[in-house]
Amino acid sequence: MGGEREFIASLLVPLANTPAARGLADDAAVWTPPLGRDLVVTHDVLACGVHYLPGDPPGDVAWKLLAVNLSDLAAMGATPAGVLMGLALSAAEDGAWREAFVAGLGRAMTHFGVAMWGGDTVTGIDRAVLGLTAVGFVEPGQALARSGASVGDDLWVSGTIGDAGLGLAIALGEAPGDSYLLNRFRRPLPRLALGQALAGIATACMDVSDGLLIDADRIGRASGVRLSIVLADVPLSGQALARTDGDAGMLARATAGDDYELLFTAHPDRRVDVAAAATASRTPVTRIGQIFEGVGVAAVNNAGVDITPARLGWEHS
Amino acid sequence: MGGEREFIASLLVPLANTPAARGLADDAAVWTPPLGRDLVVTHDVLACGVHYLPGDPPGDVAWKLLAVNLSDLAAMGATPAGVLMGLALSAAEDGAWREAFVAGLGRAMTHFGVAMWGGDTVTGIDRAVLGLTAVGFVEPGQALARSGASVGDDLWVSGTIGDAGLGLAIALGEAPGDSYLLNRFRRPLPRLALGQALAGIATACMDVSDGLLIDADRIGRASGVRLSIVLADVPLSGQALARTDGDAGMLARATAGDDYELLFTAHPDRRVDVAAAATASRTPVTRIGQIFEGVGVAAVNNAGVDITPARLGWEHS
Repeated sequence: MGGEREFIASLLVPLANTPAARGLADDAAVWTPPLGRDLVVTHDVLACGVHYLPGDPPGDVAWKLLAVNLSDLAAMGATPAGVLMGLALSAAEDGAWREAFVAGLGRAMTHFGVAMWGGDTVTGIDRAVLGLTAVGFVEPGQALARSGASVGDDLWVSGTIGDAGLGLAIALGEAPGDSYLLNRFRRPLPRLALGQALAGIATACMDVSDGLLIDADRIGRASGVRLSIVLADVPLSGQALARTDGDAGMLARATAGDDYELLFTAHPDRRVDVAAAATASRTPVTRIGQIFEGVGVAAVNNAGVDITPARLGWEHS
Repeated sequence: MGGEREFIASLLVPLANTPAARGLADDAAVWTPPLGRDLVVTHDVLACGVHYLPGDPPGDVAWKLLAVNLSDLAAMGATPAGVLMGLALSAAEDGAWREAFVAGLGRAMTHFGVAMWGGDTVTGIDRAVLGLTAVGFVEPGQALARSGASVGDDLWVSGTIGDAGLGLAIALGEAPGDSYLLNRFRRPLPRLALGQALAGIATACMDVSDGLLIDADRIGRASGVRLSIVLADVPLSGQALARTDGDAGMLARATAGDDYELLFTAHPDRRVDVAAAATASRTPVTRIGQIFEGVGVAAVNNAGVDITPARLGWEHS
């Protein structure tokens, strides 16, 4: 535990009120995992100016930092337990920013039932880079993967698609404001309960972070199958629907990132089980396509024409 | 798992050749921990220009990133298992830098017997920020802490003190070169075997990362005792000894950071056990003081005078 003593003592220690964190007073966290489970561990980084905007509310940045990592756990069907943070801060993250960041983080941690275990804070860098490690667990051998989709499986997605991309346009001042859409961009809701309920049901699963089509393509490549998506069946929110026109509009929704919904496949015999998982987790799910022989993804319009675009989503160059 | 596709595919995937990493193809790593152990988890960040110099060899930067985190596990008595990395890279970290970084990381991982599980890579930031999460395990309840030192305990330190501080001066061009000292700064050796051997023997333990005196002070504050250090007993390497003169010189060694030795306390009845742990782990240890009533640290010279300086070591402002 290095870094900014006062920030840690006054703001982070109160947050780390779990035995595993040891009051942030030792060199590492110590946690007794539930017996006989597999651990699921992920680490995602948000860079200021790349993944969020310098003017974004600090509390929302904290929420997003936690949420994107928990979304990775959700995609594996895991239950989150604790997190460690690596904060590299610049002079722009002043006292008020830090206070608001930690307050927002605390709210998010409470919301998702996850504990702060530790980490590191460094200062004196030019632009903030925020890393977070999330640790969770699954029943042994039950972690979901991208590689299990089979020909004939159904393709499903949770929630609605494209809201966050519209929210980003609003945050950038490129589109008229809407608090629902902006919130979907700034405060994503990882589908933890659904992911956990899908263990043993879904054959493949991942979270939609870079765009529906590109993430579907990843499942297709990992599984050695082709995911065919009926664009008209992709669920949109009312707010997104009002801003979406024709095939081009649907493709814009399906290639925008930051949705953090779950995209998963399951055998058609398991439709009742998928519906039960959705009900149990209070998460809407929609069947949006089917798995065929081939590799990758195909987006099909109402006329049955394959209109898969060259750019499938957010590509990290 | 976001970020720089080609870098990940060509350089990081070959490194992640362990089942837990799932070929870096899923949203998170999945690891089956040894049954009934406690997990020990730490995350430390190295920022370019703050913790290492832009001109440092990339392989050494990788070594240090891994080593400082494993040193935190060593301080807890833990056995390392796997790591996740969060790399935020700028244009300065070009193809050659990345290749050398990953090659050095691979060598360090092999040296310390630790697996690459995953992480995230982002680009387009101004200056590199490198984060690493290390996961290890200990026998249940056996993790070492800073808070267990008792009045009457001996104070011990492993290896030699002050070499890395002299190495930093060499790296900065402020002192004549010496490959041993420079190496001690750039390629620290976490005392993993000693830490593991000290479980059940040491009453308090931490790694010396910010300076012997300041880290001793931290044990003192965490344990509610005073650590008295006999400066003349603090072990120096031959190379450091040749550059160290009088009390001022000893204080310079004892307030420099980056040594990554273990500083620990044990009851005097356990001297034979400490010696056995040192032998078993092939790590030299030296008794450098004793624990008294009070709080914090005191540095005593040959004349028995308390010459504790105001500045105890590297303070993160």
